[in-house]
Amino acid sequence: MSILVVGSVAYDSVETPSGKVTDALGGSALYFSSAARFFASVNVVGVVGNDFDFSEIEFLKQHQVDLEGLSIEDGQTFRWGGKYHANLDDRDTTYTYLNVFEDFKPVIPGNYQKSKFVFLANIDPELQLDVLQSIDKPDLVILDTMNFWISGKRKQLDAVLKKVDMAILNEEEIYQLTQMSNLFDAAKELLNSGLKILVIKRGKYGSILASPGGYFFGPAYPVTRVVDPTGAGDTFAGGLIGYLASCSDFNENNLRKAVIYGTVVASFNVEDFSFNRLRQISRNDIENRLAELRQMTIF
Amino acid sequence: MSILVVGSVAYDSVETPSGKVTDALGGSALYFSSAARFFASVNVVGVVGNDFDFSEIEFLKQHQVDLEGLSIEDGQTFRWGGKYHANLDDRDTTYTYLNVFEDFKPVIPGNYQKSKFVFLANIDPELQLDVLQSIDKPDLVILDTMNFWISGKRKQLDAVLKKVDMAILNEEEIYQLTQMSNLFDAAKELLNSGLKILVIKRGKYGSILASPGGYFFGPAYPVTRVVDPTGAGDTFAGGLIGYLASCSDFNENNLRKAVIYGTVVASFNVEDFSFNRLRQISRNDIENRLAELRQMTIF
Repeated sequence: MSILVVGSVAYDSVETPSGKVTDALGGSALYFSSAARFFASVNVVGVVGNDFDFSEIEFLKQHQVDLEGLSIEDGQTFRWGGKYHANLDDRDTTYTYLNVFEDFKPVIPGNYQKSKFVFLANIDPELQLDVLQSIDKPDLVILDTMNFWISGKRKQLDAVLKKVDMAILNEEEIYQLTQMSNLFDAAKELLNSGLKILVIKRGKYGSILASPGGYFFGPAYPVTRVVDPTGAGDTFAGGLIGYLASCSDFNENNLRKAVIYGTVVASFNVEDFSFNRLRQISRNDIENRLAELRQMTIF
Repeated sequence: MSILVVGSVAYDSVETPSGKVTDALGGSALYFSSAARFFASVNVVGVVGNDFDFSEIEFLKQHQVDLEGLSIEDGQTFRWGGKYHANLDDRDTTYTYLNVFEDFKPVIPGNYQKSKFVFLANIDPELQLDVLQSIDKPDLVILDTMNFWISGKRKQLDAVLKKVDMAILNEEEIYQLTQMSNLFDAAKELLNSGLKILVIKRGKYGSILASPGGYFFGPAYPVTRVVDPTGAGDTFAGGLIGYLASCSDFNENNLRKAVIYGTVVASFNVEDFSFNRLRQISRNDIENRLAELRQMTIF
């Protein structure tokens, strides 16, 4: 099954304690694709400027990623700059130039409209709603968002939340969204208000799958060489949704394995800048870390 | 097998968003005992003032806890006051009156000296060293400590670390101790410098067992009714060491189950002030949560 992802494509300049890169490939749509492509084919909808060098993403095209939905507009590609603190948990944004992304209006190519899996990466909830109106009966719609939209476009975000099956959010987003102080009360609240599945990202502390079937706790893989955390959330979503798209149903067992696949792919991603590490690894490397994680959780 | 614990006995006044208590039973030795007693008998060494009301701990005496090593000194019992923030992660100490605890010199009664399990709760490392000199060939010595001793009595703490088998520390203590920024590098460093087993406490994010056998990740139990986090660390240690003392050896499987028993007992403890909740539950309640946690981690 192929997955439709709608999100950003960016040139990122990132500095971490391990070094720095300038104008490296980034953005939620590319990070997601570079992770999901291990499991399923991916159709990308996004926008780039006419400065964008398509030869740099030839690799993705060769690995199940269709870029027909990437429109080219007059102007510069979205650029983001960030600098991480020594702890790698905190970062400062040094600049954000939305450029062509500022007027992004997702157009879904005809052959993408029957996508069964839709990942709405972190973009304006109004655009997320637009996207959903173009899709015929998807099997699973998954949403990401951020504090900026939760506070700034709450009404529109609530409207999207009513139309999605799953949300992948971090703890702070869940607290902000529910105004509750206990994570499990908050998860219940979100599941009671229509969401079928909630995945809670806790960074280096792993993740929680919350569904009517109860909770599943997945640890983070113990990475000792964190070079650049950028894209961890989107590659986590990519591995998770990619694996689900390769399953025949969304039973609890498949959902749990999907969370672990997301964890593993994200663990590789943080070991280098951009999604460079994900270019080097194979499905077999992923399976090995999954087996390691299983061994680290059995009691 | 019985366990020797050397630690504090205190009257705590605690305020949390759920309410407050004044002069409630607390201190590492009592919290530890109230948890470990589900699995093994416990011998307590500590000190109280002549204001201490022994009738309040009659319950512990009736449940495998021997209090012969609790010396009574002229003066007041150690008192601590604290107020938790709304998030329950942070707290302010409102007062600390060491009282008789200030001159605490642990004296190990003759019948305690053959203890096979020794838990050195968070006290001055010099006293921890003294205790170890009084014990005949213990099977397992476990250490707790805190930032105050890591920075203030580092040399003495290093000397104790050389003599213990296991340490139960939180993440911050591990970073402070090793001056390293990656938790797994830090864990390896501690295991390379003589420690056989390291248990890393991560609060609501669970815990990690690090041993030559690798890592084990244990989630925290999803508690929705956190009334008072005080004593979570000591009851975690109590459940963990209590269970180990009931095992015939310390193989990886037993160590992992011990971590989960610690997790479960601590999860009950935070549901009420002092160790009131641990007075109410049975071993069967503990087994039920252990089974729940197993179900929440399988994939």
